[in-house]
Amino acid sequence: MPRIVVIGGVAAGMSAASQAKRRSPESEVVVLERGPFVSYGACGMPYNLEDPSRPIEDLVVLTPERARTERGIDVRTRHEVESIETGVRRLIVRDLATEARYTLSYDALVIATGASAAKPAIPGLDRSGVFLLRELTDGSALKQHLAETPAGQAVIVGAGYIGMEMAEVLRTRGFDVTVLEKLDQVVPGFEPAIAEAVLAELGRHGVRVLTSVSVGAIERAGGAPALQVRTDRGAFPADVVLVSTGVRPNVALARAAGIPLGATGAIAVDAGMRTEVPGVFAAGDCAEAYHLVLGRPAYVPLGTTANKQGKVAGANAAGGDERFGGIVGTAAFKVFGVEVGRTGLGLAEARRAGWGAIAAASQHSSRGHAYPGARKIATVLVAERGTGRLLGAQMVGEAVAKRVDVFATALHGRMTVDEVESLDLSYAPPFAPVYDPILIAATVARKEVARPDTGGNDQALAAVGGAQRA
Amino acid sequence: MPRIVVIGGVAAGMSAASQAKRRSPESEVVVLERGPFVSYGACGMPYNLEDPSRPIEDLVVLTPERARTERGIDVRTRHEVESIETGVRRLIVRDLATEARYTLSYDALVIATGASAAKPAIPGLDRSGVFLLRELTDGSALKQHLAETPAGQAVIVGAGYIGMEMAEVLRTRGFDVTVLEKLDQVVPGFEPAIAEAVLAELGRHGVRVLTSVSVGAIERAGGAPALQVRTDRGAFPADVVLVSTGVRPNVALARAAGIPLGATGAIAVDAGMRTEVPGVFAAGDCAEAYHLVLGRPAYVPLGTTANKQGKVAGANAAGGDERFGGIVGTAAFKVFGVEVGRTGLGLAEARRAGWGAIAAASQHSSRGHAYPGARKIATVLVAERGTGRLLGAQMVGEAVAKRVDVFATALHGRMTVDEVESLDLSYAPPFAPVYDPILIAATVARKEVARPDTGGNDQALAAVGGAQRA
Repeated sequence: MPRIVVIGGVAAGMSAASQAKRRSPESEVVVLERGPFVSYGACGMPYNLEDPSRPIEDLVVLTPERARTERGIDVRTRHEVESIETGVRRLIVRDLATEARYTLSYDALVIATGASAAKPAIPGLDRSGVFLLRELTDGSALKQHLAETPAGQAVIVGAGYIGMEMAEVLRTRGFDVTVLEKLDQVVPGFEPAIAEAVLAELGRHGVRVLTSVSVGAIERAGGAPALQVRTDRGAFPADVVLVSTGVRPNVALARAAGIPLGATGAIAVDAGMRTEVPGVFAAGDCAEAYHLVLGRPAYVPLGTTANKQGKVAGANAAGGDERFGGIVGTAAFKVFGVEVGRTGLGLAEARRAGWGAIAAASQHSSRGHAYPGARKIATVLVAERGTGRLLGAQMVGEAVAKRVDVFATALHGRMTVDEVESLDLSYAPPFAPVYDPILIAATVARKEVARPDTGGNDQALAAVGGAQRA
Repeated sequence: MPRIVVIGGVAAGMSAASQAKRRSPESEVVVLERGPFVSYGACGMPYNLEDPSRPIEDLVVLTPERARTERGIDVRTRHEVESIETGVRRLIVRDLATEARYTLSYDALVIATGASAAKPAIPGLDRSGVFLLRELTDGSALKQHLAETPAGQAVIVGAGYIGMEMAEVLRTRGFDVTVLEKLDQVVPGFEPAIAEAVLAELGRHGVRVLTSVSVGAIERAGGAPALQVRTDRGAFPADVVLVSTGVRPNVALARAAGIPLGATGAIAVDAGMRTEVPGVFAAGDCAEAYHLVLGRPAYVPLGTTANKQGKVAGANAAGGDERFGGIVGTAAFKVFGVEVGRTGLGLAEARRAGWGAIAAASQHSSRGHAYPGARKIATVLVAERGTGRLLGAQMVGEAVAKRVDVFATALHGRMTVDEVESLDLSYAPPFAPVYDPILIAATVARKEVARPDTGGNDQALAAVGGAQRA
């Protein structure tokens, strides 16, 4: 009986195991997960934390027991793989409960070790009351701390997606929230115009934000609040500190086994999720993904990609020949009353990749003329000067996540902004004005790509908070 | 000074006039509108009627005065064109206020006469308390009637978009609402599975619906309610009757002038909105539009198309060379708590057009696992058996209007369901599950198109109300 082993049982890992077993029911499928939980929706943690009455275990989709009985998968939680011997197709595994070591041979191996929260070089990260938020155990610890701590001061280090989502969560739970960001804007990687709108939304909800701030240390305060975050712009008292400064792929095990990494530092894979070592696949947040706009592998660790890659890796580990279709860099999150989304490349990213790129900013209403409750949607499109090829899109406002998907689809189809402007999109006053913000954005971008290169509409970009440009 | 004349001043007409004047400021631009209003959002009428406190004039985007002073357009309301003499490029116009007739010559003419509500052969359509809903004057009359009539019994004849929207409006205003539909389902033209979900939503909100019912007459009842609608399944008392059974293009003027109509009965135009008569353009609900999936002109009168076509007609009437990019048949509306949308072809429509088409039904959640408030989204995809080319998509549920736009974009890009399945779409628990309903629908359709022709998954289509098929 062939044995397929999967290292890691969260998103990509459980997808791989389930797919392998479905594809090859006669195979033995083993999942080795270092932590106590498998198969949970990590992206749902902020929303779970917002509601004190819900147990964090609500996020678990499938327990190890159900994986065993319903899917026939041998899930071993708290089993850590210490090394991979690719030549003899064998793993050294440690059972963390008993400290017993054992070897496990495999016919095919899927590495789905995920990513870890980046730990910035800040003294005091290990103090009580300081949290990362990556694994379900992190969420569980934070949830317990929140249950035991009266709402007071919260400091969030890092203004990425998670930092934004958690600003809302902690504000909703009654905390005064301060966000500290090292770079000069919130949501780094988004265009300044989009970041500006996010900042305004944070402001409307009473979140204090400091950008270009350097955190020196997290210290014990000796009173209440129990902590303070020392920075180059003063110290911020904190009952709870959340550090959320990005993630790093967990590749130590693969690297030690001689499995090649790509230029991004994540594990290199082909479209079939094969590493360069025979019989070894990788998927999810530890692996690269082919970026269809860049035309090369990229590292964009996100849940959807992890699940899709896991499915492909599992199918192919079981003898299939599936292909992962690649990414265009689509991502979205919500902060208070606005959705924020992006797909493709930002302006700087496009220029670094060699395109003569422009960015065009626009604003338009989310709903029809005279329909109540309409709000502004701000859009920035990135396109190639001259040809008008769409390279990226970012939006903030009401109902933008699925609008961004229209741009993502256009990127898959290698459309120009002219082609986007011609799209026959849905219109009814509750969802869209006669000209959807997507079409308005394309019109503005079409004019911009036709303009001779005189520095782009950087002025308009800076002023997107102002008048409507349609 | 060249003179550009536009007949009709609602959507396409005002777009044409504005564009013509912008493109050619030296031209005289005249708009001749039979009714008292120009430039209003007819699609917003239901939502305006829902709120007794808002005047119907809120829907007017631009008054004739502002069109004159701000845009330099000579707008003449209550001026009716009696005939077009294409040989000498001259119109016979009647001023309805003074009954005076005059001739007006043109260099270029844009016909934007719109469409009228279909009047079914039912005796009593002209009784007091019976309304059509097409022009702003219709909305105004209905609004006044509602203001004077205590909420009682309302009967809606016709279960298309407008009928559905008005069912919600009248219910919200406190009426008992009965919808009578001649065909065997609500929202004719939508797949049965979608219609089923719409029917369920109507039921949840206490709207009574009778399908396959034949209306005999609208009669005076001699008491309160003042009317009754007699059908082959009994008589329905009514304080207000709304008749909403589709629209017909207003082509009498064009036909009399020898301007050729297309096979659909609307005015035939090329991509530049030129009719076959030199110097005469047509745009909006009186004209055909090229359907990119069908590969031939179609008649799908909708506001967005009217505005876009108007812009192209106006630009070209002013000497430009713009092209209208065509339609894929995208439309959406809201009824109570659900959005309903479609793009491309339905199954029967695709088969009539010669495709070996299948339909694949699926259901999936609108939001992430364990995120509160998730609802079901039902999707039906139509695709070509074998090749998997996407031909159409219909959805009902939460946040589907802009999801339908993803399918519309895929239709513009001539994508297959495999390609749709590979799209990198946004994911975050508030907006989508890990696999968006779009991707689930594509997976189900991919399997279906690969199946040998044994009658399709008609069984699954019938049972879409049941279990999840993902």
